[in-house]
Amino acid sequence: MQDIRFKPERSQYVYTFGGAEPALRITPGTVLRLWSEDAFNFALRSTSDLPDRLDMRYVNPQTGPFYVEGAEPGDTLALHIVDLTPARGFGASTTIPFFGGLTGTDRTALLQEALPSATWIYEVDSARQTVGFQSRFGDLEIALPIECMLGTVGVAPAAGEVRTSLVPERFGGNMDTPEMKVGTTAYLGVNVEGAMFSIGDGHYRQGEGEACGTAVEGAMDSVIIVELIKGSAPAWPRLETDDHWMVVGSSRPMEDSWRIAQVEMVDWLGEMFGLHRMDAYQLLTQIALAPIANVVDANYSVVVKVRKSLLPSSEAFDGMHRRLREAAAEAR
Amino acid sequence: MQDIRFKPERSQYVYTFGGAEPALRITPGTVLRLWSEDAFNFALRSTSDLPDRLDMRYVNPQTGPFYVEGAEPGDTLALHIVDLTPARGFGASTTIPFFGGLTGTDRTALLQEALPSATWIYEVDSARQTVGFQSRFGDLEIALPIECMLGTVGVAPAAGEVRTSLVPERFGGNMDTPEMKVGTTAYLGVNVEGAMFSIGDGHYRQGEGEACGTAVEGAMDSVIIVELIKGSAPAWPRLETDDHWMVVGSSRPMEDSWRIAQVEMVDWLGEMFGLHRMDAYQLLTQIALAPIANVVDANYSVVVKVRKSLLPSSEAFDGMHRRLREAAAEAR
Amino acid sequence: MQDIRFKPERSQYVYTFGGAEPALRITPGTVLRLWSEDAFNFALRSTSDLPDRLDMRYVNPQTGPFYVEGAEPGDTLALHIVDLTPARGFGASTTIPFFGGLTGTDRTALLQEALPSATWIYEVDSARQTVGFQSRFGDLEIALPIECMLGTVGVAPAAGEVRTSLVPERFGGNMDTPEMKVGTTAYLGVNVEGAMFSIGDGHYRQGEGEACGTAVEGAMDSVIIVELIKGSAPAWPRLETDDHWMVVGSSRPMEDSWRIAQVEMVDWLGEMFGLHRMDAYQLLTQIALAPIANVVDANYSVVVKVRKSLLPSSEAFDGMHRRLREAAAEAR
Amino acid sequence: MQDIRFKPERSQYVYTFGGAEPALRITPGTVLRLWSEDAFNFALRSTSDLPDRLDMRYVNPQTGPFYVEGAEPGDTLALHIVDLTPARGFGASTTIPFFGGLTGTDRTALLQEALPSATWIYEVDSARQTVGFQSRFGDLEIALPIECMLGTVGVAPAAGEVRTSLVPERFGGNMDTPEMKVGTTAYLGVNVEGAMFSIGDGHYRQGEGEACGTAVEGAMDSVIIVELIKGSAPAWPRLETDDHWMVVGSSRPMEDSWRIAQVEMVDWLGEMFGLHRMDAYQLLTQIALAPIANVVDANYSVVVKVRKSLLPSSEAFDGMHRRLREAAAEAR
Repeated sequence: MQDIRFKPERSQYVYTFGGAEPALRITPGTVLRLWSEDAFNFALRSTSDLPDRLDMRYVNPQTGPFYVEGAEPGDTLALHIVDLTPARGFGASTTIPFFGGLTGTDRTALLQEALPSATWIYEVDSARQTVGFQSRFGDLEIALPIECMLGTVGVAPAAGEVRTSLVPERFGGNMDTPEMKVGTTAYLGVNVEGAMFSIGDGHYRQGEGEACGTAVEGAMDSVIIVELIKGSAPAWPRLETDDHWMVVGSSRPMEDSWRIAQVEMVDWLGEMFGLHRMDAYQLLTQIALAPIANVVDANYSVVVKVRKSLLPSSEAFDGMHRRLREAAAEAR
Repeated sequence: MQDIRFKPERSQYVYTFGGAEPALRITPGTVLRLWSEDAFNFALRSTSDLPDRLDMRYVNPQTGPFYVEGAEPGDTLALHIVDLTPARGFGASTTIPFFGGLTGTDRTALLQEALPSATWIYEVDSARQTVGFQSRFGDLEIALPIECMLGTVGVAPAAGEVRTSLVPERFGGNMDTPEMKVGTTAYLGVNVEGAMFSIGDGHYRQGEGEACGTAVEGAMDSVIIVELIKGSAPAWPRLETDDHWMVVGSSRPMEDSWRIAQVEMVDWLGEMFGLHRMDAYQLLTQIALAPIANVVDANYSVVVKVRKSLLPSSEAFDGMHRRLREAAAEAR
Repeated sequence: MQDIRFKPERSQYVYTFGGAEPALRITPGTVLRLWSEDAFNFALRSTSDLPDRLDMRYVNPQTGPFYVEGAEPGDTLALHIVDLTPARGFGASTTIPFFGGLTGTDRTALLQEALPSATWIYEVDSARQTVGFQSRFGDLEIALPIECMLGTVGVAPAAGEVRTSLVPERFGGNMDTPEMKVGTTAYLGVNVEGAMFSIGDGHYRQGEGEACGTAVEGAMDSVIIVELIKGSAPAWPRLETDDHWMVVGSSRPMEDSWRIAQVEMVDWLGEMFGLHRMDAYQLLTQIALAPIANVVDANYSVVVKVRKSLLPSSEAFDGMHRRLREAAAEAR
Repeated sequence: MQDIRFKPERSQYVYTFGGAEPALRITPGTVLRLWSEDAFNFALRSTSDLPDRLDMRYVNPQTGPFYVEGAEPGDTLALHIVDLTPARGFGASTTIPFFGGLTGTDRTALLQEALPSATWIYEVDSARQTVGFQSRFGDLEIALPIECMLGTVGVAPAAGEVRTSLVPERFGGNMDTPEMKVGTTAYLGVNVEGAMFSIGDGHYRQGEGEACGTAVEGAMDSVIIVELIKGSAPAWPRLETDDHWMVVGSSRPMEDSWRIAQVEMVDWLGEMFGLHRMDAYQLLTQIALAPIANVVDANYSVVVKVRKSLLPSSEAFDGMHRRLREAAAEAR
């Protein structure tokens, strides 16, 4: 089992899915110990650093892409998140003009003035495992639990496309779901030789919806085990934890994101339990959880989630998640 | 404290919010022990009862409306759910042609053929507190935990409108959220004298999204305490439990339902913690939960939810929920 | 043929579809000569009258409703617009806070400040048949052709509903399409005995989309011939002129409004030309016009429109439009 | 003035915007005489050629891209369509499973069966300038006027993206608007050196909305004059004819496409007439036309359109359209 540590130079940051040369070539089974810069490219370090400091051509830098030996279109990349640790003593969040869920945007184009720009700095308290919210326009301070996640995990798109790292899509990407956390295995359909996956956009915590458009953004140390399943590519990203199976749909309007995730889960339940589509539709109706992931990116993302304990025992992808959990125990 | 038991005759069922004479006049503080028919008007009793048996003019019957003495427009009705118990030995669910989330509908008008009609019957096992899912097109059987909720809780609309009981809106109505369960207090803005609220659409369980359009629908025994807060009407329905504050937004497309709930929660946090709107927006971004309620009704409903334990101690509506919990302990 | 002139007293204005007593009972074939107040209830008479003068409970007053003898659910009401003439020397338009297409609204709920309130007064030049646009924040003045239309034409809704006059729906209502002009016949499905239709919301002119939410709003003299077709109720409002067949779909998101109108037109072409649905779908794909009506009301409205001259000769509703044109020639 | 004829070999077809080497380098002022293959890559030649013959990786082939000397990011590419002539004796249209406006798709993911696959062949009658619609499931035949247009006109995207030729976006692309016809000048913002524009997807005619997803698709001979304006890049594609100014917005849901086009037109009117944004908003409200372009592509496209004759005389882009019209008269 290879165990590789990789921290990109600033010149190596990548801002797209697809279209970049591999940072590394790895074999299935590799443990990757990765460092990723925050989504702001470290441009916001105090509350006086406003988002006009951001060069929007260079946001959401990716660590990668990684070429996985043997991966071919139609295969399934399995990425298991072993560990996520803040790699800096603070995280930052900000309100960017005409960006976010409760403002007009370049898409929901309106004539109103932009919301005020502001930056919030969240100090990390490693001992208590909290980040500190401090009001910018008042004096409330609250320590919030650190719950690390990766906003962005994706492979190169199909059809020769190259997409910015701000987009969530079939290929994963900027899904911004709090479910992308320690203990999660992500299954992504491979579109190009080598899969060419990358990760980034570490969040020390994020609410569902990511309303203002930016989480508690911070540099991250990630430990990830990479595996390859020949064939079986899901149409949309699937996630698995010890307790849940999940699908992430990303589109607009948001009901379409939900429909995508729901149909993919109907099919997944069908595969696992031999269910007729109408029975899977009925069963899922009564057991699904449906937390929103983000309503702020180029596409909106919705998670459809099933609690394993409600269903008979079953293993997806031939027990890949269980094996990755075992490997993770060793890799940690 | 009044304690009233009410089971409507079939001729007393009501199918609208607004437009009906009060079933009862009650005073604030009353404990109501209500029986409600299932959403299908008891037309589906076996798997051979298909949805063509439904008279769509008479679905989702309401128990009520109740005239609350002293309630005036601008006031806030508080309804606390003390208990929900299945009032029948089985629940039913069904796929109605061109109704539901994964089919074209009268709104998402398409040319494809309807999905097959089918009815699933869920036997109630009171001892184990489960309902039994049985495949209609295969042989999988699963016992699922009973988690009772009310799909429909609402008051008469504003502006002289009368709306069918299938609609979720500002006035509450058919929100179909699993959060409307035992221990929840619902706060609804009063639009007409007496508030004129009703309840119905009991679900023995329902997944988030209510994908196929119908939950495990069943007759329900509900115990509800009714309180009145003078003034303070929220713009959209707010919910409170011991652990969470919540808002339900209902509109189309679904991102608008989320925006509604999010803005209302920004304002609620502002009220409770003296937060500037930008600070509340920022804080909510990092702590919100956002479970979808339904994607199948005339409007789609999304819940925005905040865990109380993340925030400093505070009481909404002057501690109404706490007092209702105390009253509930006596009423049970 | 009855010929009736009716101008409601202010106390007779109606603000809903459904829920009101008939203003008059008329027989099919009647010529109605109606006066309607502007959508602002005449509250905006100069540029210094800002929209905060509006009592939003009392906007979009309707003239009606009219009970049509013999009309039963399932029948089709045909309303032919013989003439529309400005009944006042000026029209008004205004930007209402959080209302309109390029601003956040109560549905597209955002945190940005409202756009500035402003009122524009358009003087009517009867000789040149123009209204005068005058910049409020500059000095451009332009005379625009008067092109009168009725924003609102509708019947009582189904299912016992009562809806505000601001809503466009299956029952017609506030569709705000410039196609509702002299020479147009509107076909509306009847939902209640007597049909109970009303009209209002006269516009001296309006662009497609009605972007800011209000057209050149003015009191209107309308001449309308009322006819009844037994049975044949369309699912959604259909319009006919000498040159076009049209359907108006109203829902959210806007693609659903389009889908509704498109499917209804597929079916209408099928009825008229004996076309299989797939052939009608194909043909319509190549010949449809699809002007947006409004993107500002409670539902968005889209018109799907077919030029008659592209198709073989055919008469909808047994030639009703042709007969109404003949009757109109006499009534004028 | 250069005058270049170019017909790509099949191996030269390009299926993306961005990501391809230039087919030619040209100077501003060049007249291009281009041949383009149909969107189906000539795979559908008779009604028995069903869409399963399509290799979806290779549809909507582009002729180009063309590198325009001197074009830099921030500049404006002006493309004037001098002539469009069918380059084949027939056009084809088809219903592709789960593609189109009145069916579930990969985005509006549903469980219903696909619509039937079928192909319609439209024979070109050059003398009468018609294409012949022939029912596939009945016997209606109609000759429809040829009204040629280009479905796809676009430049390379910004931010290093590469997008399939099926996508309409800021960079133009697959906008599928009938307004892209002889006499139209398209203004596109340049994102990369050389602009790298291409064209394709010729339609012998298309209705607004392109409901079934495919127009009367045919190989096309196009004559286009290419000009470059330094600076002045519009945010979204603008079109100009002798009679109209237009903007094309492309996004989802469709109201956002409309908002985009509307805001861009507000700004364009502001530039041309020195109007305050609120005055431009008001004026546009009363004069806009808003024909839908397509509701079937990866984004939906809406045109916002202003009739020049309603406004004072003005010239956009310093009279570029007028000069191109003059050049076109010579080039024809």
